[in-house]
Formats: sequence, C-alpha cells, structure tokens
Amino acid sequence: MVLENTSFLDACRGRRPARTPIWMMRQAGRYLPEYREIRSKVSFLELTKTPELCAEVTLQPVDRLDVDAAILFSDILVVFDAMGVDVEFNPAPEIARPVRTAADVARLRWGDPREDVGYVLDAVRACKRALAGRVPLIGFCGAPFTTLSYLVEGKGSREYQHIKGLMFSEPALFHQLMASMTELLCTYLGGQVEAGVDALQVFDSWAGALAPVDYREHVLPHMRRLVDHVRGLGVPLIVFVRGNASLLRQSAELGADVIGVDWTIELERAIAEVGSTRVVQGNLDPQILLGPEALIERRARDVLDAGRAARAHIFNLGHGISRFTDPGKARLLVDVVHGYSG
Amino acid sequence: MVLENTSFLDACRGRRPARTPIWMMRQAGRYLPEYREIRSKVSFLELTKTPELCAEVTLQPVDRLDVDAAILFSDILVVFDAMGVDVEFNPAPEIARPVRTAADVARLRWGDPREDVGYVLDAVRACKRALAGRVPLIGFCGAPFTTLSYLVEGKGSREYQHIKGLMFSEPALFHQLMASMTELLCTYLGGQVEAGVDALQVFDSWAGALAPVDYREHVLPHMRRLVDHVRGLGVPLIVFVRGNASLLRQSAELGADVIGVDWTIELERAIAEVGSTRVVQGNLDPQILLGPEALIERRARDVLDAGRAARAHIFNLGHGISRFTDPGKARLLVDVVHGYSG
Repeated sequence: MVLENTSFLDACRGRRPARTPIWMMRQAGRYLPEYREIRSKVSFLELTKTPELCAEVTLQPVDRLDVDAAILFSDILVVFDAMGVDVEFNPAPEIARPVRTAADVARLRWGDPREDVGYVLDAVRACKRALAGRVPLIGFCGAPFTTLSYLVEGKGSREYQHIKGLMFSEPALFHQLMASMTELLCTYLGGQVEAGVDALQVFDSWAGALAPVDYREHVLPHMRRLVDHVRGLGVPLIVFVRGNASLLRQSAELGADVIGVDWTIELERAIAEVGSTRVVQGNLDPQILLGPEALIERRARDVLDAGRAARAHIFNLGHGISRFTDPGKARLLVDVVHGYSG
Repeated sequence: MVLENTSFLDACRGRRPARTPIWMMRQAGRYLPEYREIRSKVSFLELTKTPELCAEVTLQPVDRLDVDAAILFSDILVVFDAMGVDVEFNPAPEIARPVRTAADVARLRWGDPREDVGYVLDAVRACKRALAGRVPLIGFCGAPFTTLSYLVEGKGSREYQHIKGLMFSEPALFHQLMASMTELLCTYLGGQVEAGVDALQVFDSWAGALAPVDYREHVLPHMRRLVDHVRGLGVPLIVFVRGNASLLRQSAELGADVIGVDWTIELERAIAEVGSTRVVQGNLDPQILLGPEALIERRARDVLDAGRAARAHIFNLGHGISRFTDPGKARLLVDVVHGYSG
C-alpha cells in the first residue's frame, strides 16, 4: 500500500522532508481519555493481546494529534511470553521469578516470538489495515540489555545490583544470556517486519545506568549484531539509549539509521557528538508539556533550530509522554512543529 | 586541632598529595555489620538525632577502611525539621504532606537550622572529638533543587512531574521557593562550619533530571548564591550533580573547589569538560565493588590514571556505596588507591 505521508520515512532515510516529522514516544497511552475509556474495560495485558483493540489505541494519537507516524501499541516485556516468563503489570511491570541463578537460567525457554507472541504480529497487521496508508507504522522491542535487565532485576531498579552483579561477577554467563536474548529479539523484529511495520525502534531504556566502558565491553557487541540483522530487513532502525548522553558516540557507531536523543543533552551537542551526517530524533523534555503554551512553542522552536544541523531531524520527546499531559498541549506541539518547519 | 592526614584537604585546595586521597559516598552505612548492629537498636531517624551514635557510625569506615576523610552521618532531609515538615524513612524517605499548592507554601516555616536542627551540629562536634584529628570531617546538605524536589514530590520520583510542573507553570513561585531554600541551606552550612566541619559537599542528586537549559535558567542562579556564600566560610566545597554529565560544564562554572563526577562519563572526558585546572572527585561505578578483586583493581587504576589529567583528584565512587557491598572489597579499593598512587 502506498503511504500518504512519507515525511517520517524520508527523514529516517536521510532526506529532509518539507516539514519536520513528529511522533511522540508513548503517544498511545493514559493521557488520552479515549485510551482510558478502553482501559476501563480491559487490563493492560488483555489490551496488548487483543489485536483489534491494539489497532484502535495505536490510531488514537494519529486521529487526535496529526502525528506523522504511528507506533504499535504493545510493551517491550511481552516478548517474555516466548521465554516462559510471567510478567504482571500493577501498573509497573513485575516478574514473579526473576532470573538470578544458574538454575533459573537453565529453566529459561528460548522460543520463537513469531509463534509465542503471535498476537503482536496480528496487532501489526490490524494496525496496518486500520491505518490504510495514512502514516507509517513503527514496530519496536527492548534492547538486549534492557530486556535482560528486567529479567534479572524482576522490576524497575535504581541500583541495578543484580544485573550489574551478574555482569561483573559472571561475565561469561552474562554474555551468553545477552547473545541468546539478541537472537530472540532479532527473530522478533524480523516477524514484525514480515507482518508489515515500516520502521523499527529499539529502546535501551536502562543502558544509561552503565559506565561508557561497560557499555562498550558488555553491550555494544550484542547491539552491533542486532543492528546488522535489522539492516538486512529493509526497514529503517532507530536506536534510543536513554539516560546517559555519554553513550551517544557509541550509539552512533552502531550504524543505525536514526539516533534517538533524550532531553538531558542540548540537541546541538548531541549532533556534534554523533556527527552532522547522521539523522537524529528528539529531544524535548516531556514535562515541558505541563507548562504554558508560550513555553511549549519556544522550546519546540529551539529544538527545531538545533535540529537543522543534522542531516535530518525527527521531532520527538526525549522520553515517553507523561500521563499528566493535557492532550490539547500535545496537539499544540504537533502544530508548532509542523508550522515552524513548514 | 592539627590534622594528621591532610591529603583530602590538600587535594581540595588544588595541591596534589603524595598519594591520591579516597573516601566513599555513603561510606557509613548498611553494608557495614557494625552499622547494622547499631541500627538493630535504633531507627534511622533516632540515629541521626543522637550525636554520640552519629559519631560512632561516622568513624566506623575510618577505622575499618582507612579512608582519608570522614563524612558526617546524617541525611539531606533532616533540614526539614527547620521547616515544620515531617519526613519518615520506610526505609526510603517519604513526606506525609508534599508541598503542592499556594496554601501548602504559605504553611511552610523558614526556621533557623542552627537551632531547629541543632542535633546535627552537636553530631559534628561529637565527630570532631571522636576523630581527634585523624582525618578531616566533611559536612553536607542537599542542593536547593534536590531539597525542594523532595518537598514537592514527597518521595523519590521517576518523572518529577510535580517539581517540573511547578517550575514550568509557576516559575515565579518556583524561584521564590528556591531562593528561600537556598538561604536556609546557606545558614545550615554556616552552622556546620562553626561546629567544626573541615569541608562541605552539596549533593544535587536530582538535578540530573533537568535539561541543560532548565538547569541554567532555574537552578544555576541559586547554586551560584550558595557557592558564593560558602566561599566566605573558609572551608573547601565539593559540588556533586548526579545523573547528567551534560551539566558538568555549568557545574564547573560555579567555581566550587571540587567538582564531583558520577560514573556515567569517562573521567578523562569529565576533566576535559571542566578544564584541567580544576579538582575533580570520582568516579568508579559503585557496583564494580560487586565484582571480583581483579576487576576492582583494574578499574580503580583506570580511574587513577585518568585523574592525573586534573589539577588534583580525590578518588570516590560515582554514587553511594551499595548496601550489598562486601566491606572487604571496599577496603581492597582503598588499599589499591593508596598503593597505586603512592
């Protein structure tokens, strides 16, 4: 199907579209009343497992905000269904039996996400049908380190003592787990592309907790394998490492099409770090949307001005949109971005 | 009283001592069995309010680890006793009534910490007596932004929606609160110096959540006031901003004696950011201490090698020591630092 709005994909491919494309991480979510309406009837997990409802919530921000890309409604942890690992959302994700010992590792199943998480691929197909070519659809997964960290920590962590303990004390086992996780995620992303996604984003939400030397030693080789695999799939890839701008240079070395940037660094500096021949995505602090309209406009323009130094720029927040956001402010942001760069 | 070991203060003043000084953030704490022994009898808050016990736990790591400085056992939130704000530790700190509205603000009391938190100053005096000149004593407080954030969020936060909401929506009120908080903290630090501390560290544990532009606009002017005040007190000051290396340049602009560096940036790069004429403190990932001895030695030496590019270097962790740390590994680190640089 021919896409009506190709500005996002053009930018991913390094061509500057007439107006800067924008989408927002977590744009299908709790800040939207129409999302909360659906969630009042089904749990988060039920929603992720019901393709038609996934499509409905995936399209909500496309309808309301006029964003230039849709991102599949799902969660990075559903892939655990391919591993025999139960995860609950209360509402933060929690794993009943975190993987900490050799015996825990032995019990892990390394299944095929194309079968075991088939409902996600059905959701991709439902989204593509519902979108009918209006905007491209972004698929995603967690990066190997972030996904493995959840498996080992069992839930969100401030200190990451379990995953770092494993990394530092048993590096061979750590690398073995990372390698297996990477293969599983490669298969998963391949399945999403076969099902129809137009682009992919890999979220390394937790890698920011690592010192640059540890990212290089323990994470980069696996990310390189994953990026090389995706390059063969024919869709652009965005790599987004959150919470540590010192990792941007390594992130750029991977050779993904687009480098995601969070809000903790000036976009000018981020572009200088990764090189002006690269495509960047970002990087407004999501909480700016809690401020008045004049502030949102001013800061959005600052980000757009900075983005001109890159080969191409996809406007985004530096992290997921807050559930406390007024949807009207989110729409204002989209209009400012479209109007200013147009 | 003449100090026996001046290596830490020498380094603070920009003179390279014969061997690199080391202390560790949170060095008096739960990883030590002798600390847990005391905590089995008194609560955390009771401990902070009992000067003789504060002195005992403050000295525990000096005795066991041979560190080159002691840091007062206390908490950045006890200063709320001067504001009529109750805080509980369960074990994470929590404020029963966070300050969110104009009415909440009107209810705040801006007392004199020298009177209302007099037990801390008594603890300083008890520590100095007990130390008897062995090593210098570091006093501390939370930075204005971090302290105000706790007051407004009420507890640890991932999104900082309340403090950022205030900052972006009501900047005048935010600045007024920051200014009042800064004056309170200046008085508090002055009291600590009068009571006998030899150096001060200001912890801006939460400022890392800010974009550089917001740190400049909303935090830097207040930090400048605080740093200028401390300059008149005659003891060296360490400023430690955690979680965002993009703020190092602004942190250096403040003109504090020592710039604390967390583990998320290579120390070489941090020194390049702040300038090689400056004194830096840091920056080993605390979780490295969960690893084997060979790794601890290797990484400690890497940090020491990098530190040579600075005017002077105080070895520290990039954040507080983990409660899961084997005290023997902490002692090993001190010995490696003393031995390698000696």
